Amino acid sequence: MTSSPDAVTPSRGAVAAGEGTTTAPFADRLATIVTARESQVVLGLDPDPAQLWPEALDAAAADGPPAERAAQAVLAHCRALVEAAGPACVAVKPQLACFERLGAPGWAALAAVVEHAREAGLLVLADGKRGDIAVSAAAYGQALVGATPTPLGAVAGLGADAFTASPYLGIDTLEELLEAARGARAGMFVLVRTSNPGAADLQDAELAGGRPLWERVAGIVHDLGVVGTTAAGAGPAPATGRGATAATGGGLHDVGAVVGATAPEHVARMRELMPRSVFLLPGIGAQGGRVEDLAPAFAPHRAAGLVTASRSIATAHERASGAAPAAAARAEAERLRAAAWALA
Amino acid sequence: MTSSPDAVTPSRGAVAAGEGTTTAPFADRLATIVTARESQVVLGLDPDPAQLWPEALDAAAADGPPAERAAQAVLAHCRALVEAAGPACVAVKPQLACFERLGAPGWAALAAVVEHAREAGLLVLADGKRGDIAVSAAAYGQALVGATPTPLGAVAGLGADAFTASPYLGIDTLEELLEAARGARAGMFVLVRTSNPGAADLQDAELAGGRPLWERVAGIVHDLGVVGTTAAGAGPAPATGRGATAATGGGLHDVGAVVGATAPEHVARMRELMPRSVFLLPGIGAQGGRVEDLAPAFAPHRAAGLVTASRSIATAHERASGAAPAAAARAEAERLRAAAWALA
Repeated sequence: MTSSPDAVTPSRGAVAAGEGTTTAPFADRLATIVTARESQVVLGLDPDPAQLWPEALDAAAADGPPAERAAQAVLAHCRALVEAAGPACVAVKPQLACFERLGAPGWAALAAVVEHAREAGLLVLADGKRGDIAVSAAAYGQALVGATPTPLGAVAGLGADAFTASPYLGIDTLEELLEAARGARAGMFVLVRTSNPGAADLQDAELAGGRPLWERVAGIVHDLGVVGTTAAGAGPAPATGRGATAATGGGLHDVGAVVGATAPEHVARMRELMPRSVFLLPGIGAQGGRVEDLAPAFAPHRAAGLVTASRSIATAHERASGAAPAAAARAEAERLRAAAWALA
Repeated sequence: MTSSPDAVTPSRGAVAAGEGTTTAPFADRLATIVTARESQVVLGLDPDPAQLWPEALDAAAADGPPAERAAQAVLAHCRALVEAAGPACVAVKPQLACFERLGAPGWAALAAVVEHAREAGLLVLADGKRGDIAVSAAAYGQALVGATPTPLGAVAGLGADAFTASPYLGIDTLEELLEAARGARAGMFVLVRTSNPGAADLQDAELAGGRPLWERVAGIVHDLGVVGTTAAGAGPAPATGRGATAATGGGLHDVGAVVGATAPEHVARMRELMPRSVFLLPGIGAQGGRVEDLAPAFAPHRAAGLVTASRSIATAHERASGAAPAAAARAEAERLRAAAWALA
C-alpha cells in the first residue's frame, strides 16, 4: 500500500451540504483508493446486537433505554471493526436494516459509523436496496447522498459515496435516484443478479426471446451509466479540479451492478453486457462464494470488481481458536485483499 | 360510520414488544375497521418539509439543528393531517423515505406519527418497499413490525400493522419478511404492478410463454398468502381470541399486492390471479388514477381494495380557493371515501 489512508479519499462533506466542491466523481475516487491500497475489499457492516464483539457491549451506558444502549454497542462494534479490518479495505457497506431496527438511536449510530469510516479514509456504500416512485426516490437520494432543503435550513443526508438500488419499479425510478447521485458526485449500484438462492425466481425468469430478466436489467445499468459526470443531466459541474482526476477512473461508469458471487458462471456474461460498470460482489465467505471464481469481474480496471465480505470478517475469530476478534478480522480482510489482488 | 374510531382497532403495542397477545390477524383487523368506518381509504403521509401546512412550521422550536426543527414540523404536519383526514380513512401509509431524509430526528418523528395514528384508531402501513437477502430481510422485519433481541433488552420496532416489500430478490426473501409479519400478526404488501410510468420496463416484460412478469409475481403473492395465521409456519398462535374475530376478514390473505391505480385495465386480471389478496391501490389523484375505474379490486370483500391518496388530500386546499388546509383535506378524504364505498 503506497499511501496513507487519509490521503486517498476526498471528503464528501461539502457535497452533502450542497455546496460547490472539487470532489472527483465516485468512480475516480474509487479507482484512486483501490490503486493506493491495492485492495478491492468492501467491509460489510451488518451488526447484530446479539453477536457483537465483547468489548462493544462494554461501551454501552450502564442504563437507559435498550435502543440507545444497543445503538451505542453497535457503534462501538462497527468502530472496532473498521479500525481492525479497514486498512485492508477500500470501503464500508453498512446494511441499513441493521441500524433501522434500533430506531432513531440506530440511525444516529449509522450516521456516526459513516463519519468514522470516512475519517478512516474509506468510501461508504449505503446498502438499502431502495427503489420507489419518482418523488419518493428523490427523497431516498436526499437521505443517502444529498440534502433536504427546508424552510428551517438544509438537512444533510448520510453523505454516502454510493448506495444500492432495486430496479423492479423501472427506469424512471432509477433515473431519479441517479440524478440525486450525480448531484452529489456519488455512485449507484443496481441489483442485477443477487447472491441468495431465490435470485432465480424472478431475476432468472426467461423472457420472450430466451434471455433471462437479469440481462435486461444489465442492459439498463449499462445504458444509464456515464464516465465522470460530464453527460447531459449529470448535475452541476464542479468548481475546479475534475480534470486533474477524471482519468483515474479507468473509464468506469457511475452506475454499477450488484452481482452475487455465488453464481460466478454469470460473471463473464455480465462483464460483456456492462463493460464499464463497477461490480459489487456480495456472497463471498458466509454465503459460499469464492473470490478465485471472480476473475472476469476485474476488467477493465481493478476497481471494476469490489468484493464484499461481512460475517466472514466479523466472525473470523470464531474459526481461529484463541484469536482476538480484531486480530482475526484484520487477518481475514488481508487474506481476502491479497487473494483478490492476485487475480487481476 | 357506526363505531367510534378508538373501538375498532386492536392495539399492536403488545406485539411489538414480543409478548403474547390477543391481537387478531391483520386482514381481520382491516376488515373490522373497513366495515366500521365504511371506508377503504389509506392516507399517505409523504411529508415534504418545503410544502408543510403553515401551522406545522410554527410548531418547530425557535432554534436548534435544522434536522430536529424540520422533524418537529413534519410531525406536526402529519398529526394535523391525521386529525383532519383520519376519520374518513382506515389506515395511514407513511413513506419511510420522507422521514429518513431527516436522519435520526426524522426516524423519531416517524415513530411518533405511528403512535399518533394508532391512537386515532388507524392501522399503519409502513411504505418502504424493502427487500433484501434473508438475514437483512429479517432485520427489516424487526425494524417495521417486530422487535430486536439484544443483550441489553429487546428493542421494539415501529409496530406497523403491515409493510410494503419488493419482490426482485425472490421468494426466499419474501418468506423471511413474511415470517416476521406473521410473528407480529401483521400483513405484507408486495409490489406487483406499480403506478409509475416506468413500471412497464420490467414488470410488463413478456416472459417466455407470453405472460408479463407481473403475472408471475401475482402468482407468488397468491401462493404465499394464508387466511388468518393458522397455516404451517405461520408463527406463534395467539393466546386467545383469534376465533372470535377470524371470520371477519372475509377470507382475505395476509399477503397483499401493490397494484397501481393508473393501469386499471389490469385490475380484473389481478383479481383473478390473487382472489384473496388485499390490493393497495396507489396512484389516485396526483398520479392520474380514478377510483371509479377500480371496481374489480373490491371483491371478495370491501377490505380487499384499499385506495391510497397522499398529495391529493394534503394539498386539496390549493385547489379550493380560500379553504383551510385541514378542512380541504377532510373534504377530499371524505369525497374519496364515499366514491370508493359507492362502487362495491
